[in-house]
Amino acid sequence: MAIRATSHYTHDELTDKEFEELKNGCLKARNLSYSPYSNFRVGCALLTDGNELFLGANLENASYPAAICAERTAISNARMNGHNTIKAMAIASDSDKPISPCGVCRQFIREFGLKIPIFMFDKLGNTFIKMYLEDLLPFSFGPDDLGVITTSSASNQ
Amino acid sequence: MAIRATSHYTHDELTDKEFEELKNGCLKARNLSYSPYSNFRVGCALLTDGNELFLGANLENASYPAAICAERTAISNARMNGHNTIKAMAIASDSDKPISPCGVCRQFIREFGLKIPIFMFDKLGNTFIKMYLEDLLPFSFGPDDLGVITTSSASNQ
Amino acid sequence: MAIRATSHYTHDELTDKEFEELKNGCLKARNLSYSPYSNFRVGCALLTDGNELFLGANLENASYPAAICAERTAISNARMNGHNTIKAMAIASDSDKPISPCGVCRQFIREFGLKIPIFMFDKLGNTFIKMYLEDLLPFSFGPDDLGVITTSSASNQ
Amino acid sequence: MAIRATSHYTHDELTDKEFEELKNGCLKARNLSYSPYSNFRVGCALLTDGNELFLGANLENASYPAAICAERTAISNARMNGHNTIKAMAIASDSDKPISPCGVCRQFIREFGLKIPIFMFDKLGNTFIKMYLEDLLPFSFGPDDLGVITTSSASNQ
Ligand SMILES: [Zn+2]
Ligand SMILES: [Zn+2]
Ligand SMILES: [Zn+2]
Ligand SMILES: [Zn+2]
Repeated sequence: MAIRATSHYTHDELTDKEFEELKNGCLKARNLSYSPYSNFRVGCALLTDGNELFLGANLENASYPAAICAERTAISNARMNGHNTIKAMAIASDSDKPISPCGVCRQFIREFGLKIPIFMFDKLGNTFIKMYLEDLLPFSFGPDDLGVITTSSASNQ
Repeated sequence: MAIRATSHYTHDELTDKEFEELKNGCLKARNLSYSPYSNFRVGCALLTDGNELFLGANLENASYPAAICAERTAISNARMNGHNTIKAMAIASDSDKPISPCGVCRQFIREFGLKIPIFMFDKLGNTFIKMYLEDLLPFSFGPDDLGVITTSSASNQ
Repeated sequence: MAIRATSHYTHDELTDKEFEELKNGCLKARNLSYSPYSNFRVGCALLTDGNELFLGANLENASYPAAICAERTAISNARMNGHNTIKAMAIASDSDKPISPCGVCRQFIREFGLKIPIFMFDKLGNTFIKMYLEDLLPFSFGPDDLGVITTSSASNQ
Repeated sequence: MAIRATSHYTHDELTDKEFEELKNGCLKARNLSYSPYSNFRVGCALLTDGNELFLGANLENASYPAAICAERTAISNARMNGHNTIKAMAIASDSDKPISPCGVCRQFIREFGLKIPIFMFDKLGNTFIKMYLEDLLPFSFGPDDLGVITTSSASNQ
């Protein structure tokens, strides 16, 4: 993939402190992973507009399709504790290279915002790639396609 | 469905206080539902062995298959906050009748225990049916079928 | 699991010829499996009321949750070729023991009928267990719970 | 979304005859849709390298997450009938505007090829947008990320 610009490697949206919290959160979240089938731990961290941090990790199942990825358990965690905004998300696995959210997660996140920056880290948190959800899921299928008006907390802002 | 026994209507596994917490939890959790497509709110509550309460609600998506049910957001919530045991779960919708977990959720819960009692309430919490996960998903497909040894936190106890 | 009766080991619903077709179909269907992640091939065969045979196999994905099981590709195959009835289904893996449909598949099949017999074979097709969908997914969540009237082709007969 | 180039509106990869087959296929496939919950019919057509045409349509479920989209039933149909190559795909709904594959489907298709052109039609087949899978799912998560070598039939060609 041709990555477009240096902005992929900056974190202007976040203060240094927020960025560190997000990075450390996703690295730590890997410990919450339940992945006896893939042995591929993924951790995710989510920062709300109010700077609350929520963690996520992949939860696998003997029936592979019943698994839930780290990005989606992170959002579940945030929303089930009363938070509806997503300022930024970060993910990391035990891979030397940054990994990206799968298509299922991109679709799930998309329901809650298009302008969300996703920070993808290597396993040590030394390097990262940043992409916005709308660039990870271009020409997306969303609420508009079904003629559904969603609440502000889930708007396509 | 032929419901087998009066035990379907008791809550021996729980103290009255625990039962009330669980019931009120799932009724309240419906407020966390994001369901602009079905307009069918589902709430779930989960009690850990240590009596911590975690809530869940359905999070829908313009792409219907990308939705996550209340039972699974509840488990995500509990695990992502460091809790691996499930003493009991409860669900309720806005229906006059108790509803049961879908097959996807039964499969997801099954990974974390077979003996878990699931309390299914009507919308007011006045009546309920209790069934154990192993009875909701008989002759289940699980870790054993793949020859995978899972950790104690996810054992088939 | 306590299997209830000798009827679990009979195939009264089918003629010997139909039964053989179904059995051989699911064994053969394993060759259609795309399962580089689990290396767990599953084959499925589906017989329509008109005795047309359709095959299914699991199609996996690097993102485990995006996989589709054999039972669901079989139903997709039948319906996309214009057939809406399911007389019986059969599955087999490369395991010495019969395996059962996962909860996701039970829920998917349930939409198209409750009285469907599911034949679960060992890898050689020498032994089998038969269970009806309604017994594999007791007290199921279905169209009625949403107040939706489905077409006859997908009735809860 | 900023659509990049006029190539979005051409079908150079296909002969006029192939293009017509694909277009008519996805329009016709909508009749195979089982969508009592969304009432949103989607049809899909898939052309193999050998110019065999396979259809797909969305199959919904009372439990929304158990649904399978048109793109995935089309691929299931093709593969379960012995075909492993995808030359091109097309989709249409009953919407005046072209709709795009959801993230779940993008991830599912990605396993079987990155260079696949997806033609997205309006309900009458009068206008379309073409995008390649790799542009619909940039920086994708795939077999490489898990260190899995897949067979040629599912290569990332
Ligand atoms: Zn994912
Ligand atoms: Zn469910
Ligand atoms: Zn399955
Ligand atoms: Zn889709």
